Amino acid sequence: MHTFPKRVQAIIDGFDALPGVGPKHATRLALYLLDHKDLAKQFASDVESALAAVAFCKECQTVTETELCDICSDTRRDHATICVVAHVQDIEPIERTDKFNGVFHVLHGVVNPVEGITPDDIRTKELLARVKKNGVTEIIFALDATAEGEATVMYLTKTLRDSRLTLSKLARGIPFGSNIEYTDEATLSSALDHREKI
Amino acid sequence: MHTFPKRVQAIIDGFDALPGVGPKHATRLALYLLDHKDLAKQFASDVESALAAVAFCKECQTVTETELCDICSDTRRDHATICVVAHVQDIEPIERTDKFNGVFHVLHGVVNPVEGITPDDIRTKELLARVKKNGVTEIIFALDATAEGEATVMYLTKTLRDSRLTLSKLARGIPFGSNIEYTDEATLSSALDHREKI
Repeated sequence: MHTFPKRVQAIIDGFDALPGVGPKHATRLALYLLDHKDLAKQFASDVESALAAVAFCKECQTVTETELCDICSDTRRDHATICVVAHVQDIEPIERTDKFNGVFHVLHGVVNPVEGITPDDIRTKELLARVKKNGVTEIIFALDATAEGEATVMYLTKTLRDSRLTLSKLARGIPFGSNIEYTDEATLSSALDHREKI
Repeated sequence: MHTFPKRVQAIIDGFDALPGVGPKHATRLALYLLDHKDLAKQFASDVESALAAVAFCKECQTVTETELCDICSDTRRDHATICVVAHVQDIEPIERTDKFNGVFHVLHGVVNPVEGITPDDIRTKELLARVKKNGVTEIIFALDATAEGEATVMYLTKTLRDSRLTLSKLARGIPFGSNIEYTDEATLSSALDHREKI
């Protein structure tokens, strides 16, 4: 059985541990790095420099190089309205809609009983602390439309029930550009329930 | 427009420069690293350590931590027969067949006129030098069955024509487990031309 030198294998294993990278792709990436040494050197130093300088915003938990992120330190934004997302990368598509002027809260995951991820493993405590202290009046859940996303919304809704907050979640319906023929029944059923008057 | 802190963006750009990683995936990978600092630290240090210790085998050009790779330094192997591959990762599947006891030569790419990759940009010179000095008698080309792979075989065949070497390339045909219905005509045509007597 052909094996790679152990330092090459270490990089392959490193890539393989990343989400959405399979073993074949990990091998290809590691060998690409070794074939492009300048790029690899820059990459390793970028990762180290980011590890030293990037932290999580003490309010919303997104990545930032300052104590508060750009959005949380923007006084023109409505700090009474929090949009709860699962991941840092979920902020950008919502910002792109230009429909939301509140602030965010990044949970860094969703509740997943199968994988043993409980509410304490994601940043729910930080959300509850913000709600208590900051005069928050509204929370919009923008979590993935999956069983885990729904379970997370349910848990937080239950926890926040007595807080007199306005709670909502993104509407479920037919996405733009989709065909009825290929739309699953859960989406169709929700789209029928919440049909819009014209 | 929402932007990431510049050190985060640097890691995203680093991943984005790798083959087979799109911008969305690059973002996800960078944020995953920042969420898993121990793993990220290990990864950056593994890359640096490999850059310092891993070189290319002076014979076959594969990755190695020693001057000669395991295969080239194995005296039980037939050093007169060279299997030419495009990439380091192409060695392993051939080794797995247990059909080949020669040595390899890694070109680190194929000729690609569209992308401006000429024979001089890949390790053809090193192959020609090996052929001259080492008593090589046979070369088997195991390059991808693409236009670029074929062009590379043609170039090297032409260059080596006068050298009295036995030259061959992998047979083209129907792969195991495939359906005739879904096989392209170039493969079918080659499989017909080289049909095996039963």
